[in-house]
Amino acid sequence: MPPRNLKILLAYDGTPYSGWQVQPDRPTIQGTLAAAITRITGETVLPQGSGRTDAGVHALGQVASFMTLSAIPAANLAKALNDMLPASIRVLSVEEADESFHARHSAMFKAYRYRIYRGKVCPPFLANYVYHYPYPLDVGKMTAAAKAVIGEHDFTSFAAVDPELGRGPEGLEREDSASAKVGNVRTIFTSQWEENDAADELVYTVRGNGFLHHMVRNLVGTFLLVGKGTLDCEDIQRILEEKNRSAAGATAPASGLHLVSVGY
Amino acid sequence: MPPRNLKILLAYDGTPYSGWQVQPDRPTIQGTLAAAITRITGETVLPQGSGRTDAGVHALGQVASFMTLSAIPAANLAKALNDMLPASIRVLSVEEADESFHARHSAMFKAYRYRIYRGKVCPPFLANYVYHYPYPLDVGKMTAAAKAVIGEHDFTSFAAVDPELGRGPEGLEREDSASAKVGNVRTIFTSQWEENDAADELVYTVRGNGFLHHMVRNLVGTFLLVGKGTLDCEDIQRILEEKNRSAAGATAPASGLHLVSVGY
Repeated sequence: MPPRNLKILLAYDGTPYSGWQVQPDRPTIQGTLAAAITRITGETVLPQGSGRTDAGVHALGQVASFMTLSAIPAANLAKALNDMLPASIRVLSVEEADESFHARHSAMFKAYRYRIYRGKVCPPFLANYVYHYPYPLDVGKMTAAAKAVIGEHDFTSFAAVDPELGRGPEGLEREDSASAKVGNVRTIFTSQWEENDAADELVYTVRGNGFLHHMVRNLVGTFLLVGKGTLDCEDIQRILEEKNRSAAGATAPASGLHLVSVGY
Repeated sequence: MPPRNLKILLAYDGTPYSGWQVQPDRPTIQGTLAAAITRITGETVLPQGSGRTDAGVHALGQVASFMTLSAIPAANLAKALNDMLPASIRVLSVEEADESFHARHSAMFKAYRYRIYRGKVCPPFLANYVYHYPYPLDVGKMTAAAKAVIGEHDFTSFAAVDPELGRGPEGLEREDSASAKVGNVRTIFTSQWEENDAADELVYTVRGNGFLHHMVRNLVGTFLLVGKGTLDCEDIQRILEEKNRSAAGATAPASGLHLVSVGY
C-alpha cells in the first residue's frame, strides 16, 4: 500500500497544554496527538498543524496532516484516536488528502475568535475560555478600530518580537502561515466586534490569509485601548505605519483566543 | 462589634477539587474558601456549606455560612474574596443573615441539574461539565420514569451505601440536609428531563427538600437504564419499594452534576 496523506480536523481545550508544539517533558497538543497516532499505527510521526497555538489558546477547528503507511480506514482512525486521546482533545474527522496537501503550507486563510466576558463576576466555567474585562468600553469605537485593519497591511507592530525565531523562511510566523505573504504583510478579510448581550460577551472575529505570532491577541489588546479611550480609532493606521511592536497595546490573555477554522 | 453571621452565595467549577469538604493535603472548595476568609479576616473559620458536593461536581448557587467578628462590610468581603480565590471559585454575593441561619440546617429545598451530551463527539470545552452519552435513548420513557419519583418516598435504593458514614443524626445525608426529613424519606417537587436540541443536550432537573448521598446521580443512572430499555418506567416504583441500592442503576459520572440553587 502506498503512503497516504491524512488530514485531521480537531478541537481542543488548550488549558492543560503548553501549546501546540511538541516540547520535551511538557504536555502539548502536537505531542499528545503524535503519541496517540504512534500507539495506533506503530509508526513514529509528527503531525504538522496549520500553525502553532500558544499555551492556553483553544481550537474549534485546527487542522493537522501526516503521512502514514497504515491501512486503517480514515473513519476508524478517527474513532481509535478519540478512544486514545484525553477528552480535552477531540478528533472531529480524518480524511485522505492529496499527496501535496500540507496543513500549514496549503492553508489559504484562518479564522479566530476572541471572547471577552463583560459581567461583573466571571462564571467559573468560563474562566479558561474568555478574558474577563468588566470595565466600561466604547464598542462603537472598537468596531471602527477593527475595520481599520481590514485589507493588506504590514502587521509588524502587532507581531511578537521573538528573538529566538529569527527571520528565516518562517519569519515571525508562529501562530500561522498561509499563502501569498511577504515578510509581515498579511491580508485581513473580516475584523469585527459583536456584542452578545444575553451571554454578557463581547466577541472579536478575525479572518485573514495569515497571522503573525501573537497578532490576534495584540490586535485585541490594542482595540481594548481604543475602547477605554486611551487610543482613538485613527491611531490604528498610525500604529500600522510605525512597524514597531511598542506602538501597539499589550498582548491580551491567551484564554480568550480560539482558532475557529482553517481554509484550504 | 457583636459577631455577625454571613451567608455566602458561590459558584464553582468542581473539576480541580476533591469535593466540597475540607481534607488534609487535597484541594477542596471548603478548604480553599476557608483559607481565603482567614487571609482577609485573620480569623480561623470553617464555612458550612448547604451540603457537600463530591469531587468533580459543580455549583451554580452553593450557599455557605460562617460567623465572624470582622467589621468588613459584606460587599467588600465579596470583592476581597474574589480577588483572593482562584477563578474556579467565584463569590456571587455575601450578605448578613440572622444569628439562627445555618447554610445546611436552614435549607428548605435544593435544585440540581444533570447535563448529558448527546452528540457523537463531545466538544473538549464541555467534557468536564457533562456526561457524554451518544447512544440511543427513549426520552419519553425517561420522562415518565422521572415523574415516578415526584412526591414523598424512601430513597434508600438511590442512596450511596457509605459504610463510613454510619446512621447517626447525619444518616446517609451527605449531598444535602434540609427540613422535615426522617431517615431516607425525601420529598421531590420537580423531576423532569428536557431536550435541548440546539445544544445536543438532554438535561435532568430535580428539586426536592433534600437529597441523599449520590441520590441525583443514582436517579440519573437508573433513568438511563429506562431510556435504553433495560428497565421500564414501572420499575421505578418497584425499585423505590425494594429499599436496596442494588435494585437501582449505576451512579452517573460526577461531571454532569450541577447544584443549581438552595432555597431557604
